[in-house]
Amino acid sequence: MSGFRHVVMFRWAEGTTTGQQEDVAARLSELPGLIPEIQGYDMGADAGVSPGAFDFVLVADFADRDAYLVYRDHPAHREIVDGRIAPITAERAVVQYER
Amino acid sequence: MSGFRHVVMFRWAEGTTTGQQEDVAARLSELPGLIPEIQGYDMGADAGVSPGAFDFVLVADFADRDAYLVYRDHPAHREIVDGRIAPITAERAVVQYER
Repeated sequence: MSGFRHVVMFRWAEGTTTGQQEDVAARLSELPGLIPEIQGYDMGADAGVSPGAFDFVLVADFADRDAYLVYRDHPAHREIVDGRIAPITAERAVVQYER
Repeated sequence: MSGFRHVVMFRWAEGTTTGQQEDVAARLSELPGLIPEIQGYDMGADAGVSPGAFDFVLVADFADRDAYLVYRDHPAHREIVDGRIAPITAERAVVQYER
């Protein structure tokens, strides 16, 4: 395995509805069909095993750093981030790494 | 793909040396050989693309929640967490999810 992996976690703001969370996941799930730079795209809502866990994580794989940057700045991605994720985000944690 | 994924990020405490970080990664990398419940194990140090990023992430895959719990509580894992990771951790973020 090689490439560039982007991992991001979110803690949703108090009052965020299940519907809003499902909407984010559904919209993100459309991105691999729109952004060919995405090689792998996996996400999930926290299973409730660890106290204090964040609420949601996305693991996205790219060929290299430049491919990740194409994704990061892609209008279809920005629309979800700015329009759907940012308004319900209380906390965000991110790491990107070369594989 | 199905199973149970554990994703954890760390921000290291100020003063943590490169040697300490490499030691953690090297010791964790031995765990798949010691804990058969580990189906996938990938980790990396942050590439420095995103301001405010955490320093390190681990993505670990298991057959199910119970297999994850075996890993979580395994003495070889606990020894690294308690002896090597906890002393240098400033912040930790975690999500586990069903795939």
